Amino acid sequence: EGMSLHGLGVEPRCRCSGTESRRIGKLIESIELFPPNPHCKDTEIIATLKSNGQEICLDPKAPWVTKVIEKILAKRSS
Amino acid sequence: EGMSLHGLGVEPRCRCSGTESRRIGKLIESIELFPPNPHCKDTEIIATLKSNGQEICLDPKAPWVTKVIEKILAKRSS
Repeated sequence: EGMSLHGLGVEPRCRCSGTESRRIGKLIESIELFPPNPHCKDTEIIATLKSNGQEICLDPKAPWVTKVIEKILAKRSS
Repeated sequence: EGMSLHGLGVEPRCRCSGTESRRIGKLIESIELFPPNPHCKDTEIIATLKSNGQEICLDPKAPWVTKVIEKILAKRSS
């Protein structure tokens, strides 16, 4: 019953199990978008907080999340 | 001439010095958006590649970059 070292890597799956419902737009330092991939069929959006670098999953379907992203993109032309 | 240990941290500045001009949308695993902050007045967009996890700066003003982001966001509802 030797433990197989093979496949000791983390089981491929989604990064997020739950999402932050509070509107934390002002606390966000950056936002990372993960399109669906072989390991996870969901689009995932993960924010990094300014204060402590903590990573928080956001609800990809929440309107306020879309607004935060649009706001960042809108700043490109300024 | 003792070297001051104070302020040995990396000088705060932008993450990107140049951007990738080729359209690498299909190679992208994730995209991170960095709005302007006290250290960097530019919006920065950094992609992580599927193949090797390499991080590549994208031109925030390039239309194809906007399309890649929109495509990811469009997949949320599927």
